[in-house]
Amino acid sequence: MKRKKWWVVLATIGVSISLAACGNKKSNNVTTTGSTSGTYQAVIKGGHYQTSKARGVAVQQNDNTYNLKSFENGLTNVIAKKFFSPKNYIFQEGQYLSASTLGDWLGRQTSKNPLGLNPAQGKKSDPNPLYIQQIEEQDYVQQSGNSLKLKGVVIGVGINSEYQYQKKTDGPYYTKKISDSEVQAQGKAAAAKIVKRLREKKDLQNVPIVVALYKQAPQDSLVGGTFFAYTKTNSAQVGSWTKLNYKNEVLPKATSAAEANSNSTGTSGSFSNFKSQVQNFFPNISGVTAQAQSKDGTLQGMHVTITTQFYSQTEINSFTGYIVQAAKKYLPNGVPIDIKIQSDSNIQAVVYRDAGSSKWNSHIFGSY
Amino acid sequence: MKRKKWWVVLATIGVSISLAACGNKKSNNVTTTGSTSGTYQAVIKGGHYQTSKARGVAVQQNDNTYNLKSFENGLTNVIAKKFFSPKNYIFQEGQYLSASTLGDWLGRQTSKNPLGLNPAQGKKSDPNPLYIQQIEEQDYVQQSGNSLKLKGVVIGVGINSEYQYQKKTDGPYYTKKISDSEVQAQGKAAAAKIVKRLREKKDLQNVPIVVALYKQAPQDSLVGGTFFAYTKTNSAQVGSWTKLNYKNEVLPKATSAAEANSNSTGTSGSFSNFKSQVQNFFPNISGVTAQAQSKDGTLQGMHVTITTQFYSQTEINSFTGYIVQAAKKYLPNGVPIDIKIQSDSNIQAVVYRDAGSSKWNSHIFGSY
Repeated sequence: MKRKKWWVVLATIGVSISLAACGNKKSNNVTTTGSTSGTYQAVIKGGHYQTSKARGVAVQQNDNTYNLKSFENGLTNVIAKKFFSPKNYIFQEGQYLSASTLGDWLGRQTSKNPLGLNPAQGKKSDPNPLYIQQIEEQDYVQQSGNSLKLKGVVIGVGINSEYQYQKKTDGPYYTKKISDSEVQAQGKAAAAKIVKRLREKKDLQNVPIVVALYKQAPQDSLVGGTFFAYTKTNSAQVGSWTKLNYKNEVLPKATSAAEANSNSTGTSGSFSNFKSQVQNFFPNISGVTAQAQSKDGTLQGMHVTITTQFYSQTEINSFTGYIVQAAKKYLPNGVPIDIKIQSDSNIQAVVYRDAGSSKWNSHIFGSY
Repeated sequence: MKRKKWWVVLATIGVSISLAACGNKKSNNVTTTGSTSGTYQAVIKGGHYQTSKARGVAVQQNDNTYNLKSFENGLTNVIAKKFFSPKNYIFQEGQYLSASTLGDWLGRQTSKNPLGLNPAQGKKSDPNPLYIQQIEEQDYVQQSGNSLKLKGVVIGVGINSEYQYQKKTDGPYYTKKISDSEVQAQGKAAAAKIVKRLREKKDLQNVPIVVALYKQAPQDSLVGGTFFAYTKTNSAQVGSWTKLNYKNEVLPKATSAAEANSNSTGTSGSFSNFKSQVQNFFPNISGVTAQAQSKDGTLQGMHVTITTQFYSQTEINSFTGYIVQAAKKYLPNGVPIDIKIQSDSNIQAVVYRDAGSSKWNSHIFGSY
């Protein structure tokens, strides 16, 4: 069931080590990364990025990397931006929950691990699910003289929508579905414990804490899960929750669901037209798929991937020009969209329109 | 010696066939792809891209795919644009030289293959090199009523700078270097024959023919070769040649050449500063390499690749913001540059500045 962690790479190749990076800065100097429009600046300390105290845990928490990317993107863009605008706040990787703390919390509750947020295993033939799959801390800070002052903490909690288990080692896998109401109940119960524990930390007694709940997509999903509720608290108690109604889908839809017409956003229809235009451009068929996200039935954006066999650089150039025109003509207006043009898994070009923009950009990856 | 052809992929996955692409156009209707700024529109016939008559040959011709990309990019951007501006001409994949014709021409001259441009093998223990490695035809056309009229043909000829051979099957490989003067002589001799043969085709008797000569990089090079001469002719003879002085290099330079300071363009120094800033951003080292091209000693552009291990999407976001700032500060002004940010071979973000622009763009590849 384990998938390759595709963004984890081992040592890089052919790199000589240089220690010139810090220049003449003092080693505890704080600077920021700089940001591109609408994104956060982040903390650099002594010339190096201030990594999370739980660095590496997130990658271990997810077999399905779509859940990982989607969880972290959502926590930043859907949740944190509601409370801490990139204009006024600097992003800092979580500094208060360590890898070992998170490891304990994500475990099952046992006499050895009383802090585990997941229930004891129970019967091996009918085990209790692991509900809480991932937890991430993000800190939002502001510059105050030469140092940074913590202004708020955002916590994401990912709850499984299904649980896979074996009745015996090397036996077949069984899957238990976890109902939406159970996902909610488990998430809220965990959130209450987490907030209480955070308030016991000296530095976290007087900052707002935002907690957001995320329903993990199934293991074999080609798109991640979604955030479905969040709350903000200034005390050790969790207050009322605000619901979120996001939906992710993979396009084209499975053939049985030819009732794609019933799609409330119309996205599926636009995408079908685009796909038809694109996939027969070459004598060989091109694969065209997409992830789409909607909120309250309204499309929020798309990630499109086109995979085809190119026989020359000139074919890549011509295809990219064509995709820009086809995107303008067929894809929905008013939302961010990116289109990855690749052969095998090697990217050859990208065509994209940013949030809030009506202009399509394109870039072809050349080589000298 | 064969390397994987990385842009050749087999059938695409999970694609249902749709025949809706042509819509209600007549099947012989001619349209164009549309173009992005500074690139060519290309020919679409009956809703499909008009592929080269020699489609697939280019890929077979090159073990080193850097030579393939660089040859085709150079033929379009360095050579063709001198004679046929994208504003006034439409690009058409070569329609006059078929795969089998090119196959014959690229072979050795034998009694069975009198048209072979390469010499007979000679002694197995000391064979004559294969000089002519690749030939590509590009057509430039203009719209004339409902049809397209051929206005010129551009031919690229790639000549090897080294030749690898075995004295016996399964024996070790030997390498013969081919001198620059030999590369030139062989290229010019081939060009003369090619132009003569093209003029024998009815459709090519009255259009300008441009021929450009390209010196292939060695098999193990991490950057492709360069065009070193071109000529334009309206007759069956090749006239005088114009020399080109392009140079490609891979950065950082091999350590022995710490005399990087002697680099006439200063590119190597700028790149070193950039690399120092970037590679120690994370606790784990990032790999930073580049291809740079110069003409008459002046930098023309760079392709930078950064490979690092990311532990979260937030690290990707922060790193990309940082790279934009570092690129502004350290990389040379006034030339197109792109920076691929990847983990393993998966792209995570791209940062680039187009030709003629002073603005850096960035795009992070997200996921729902």
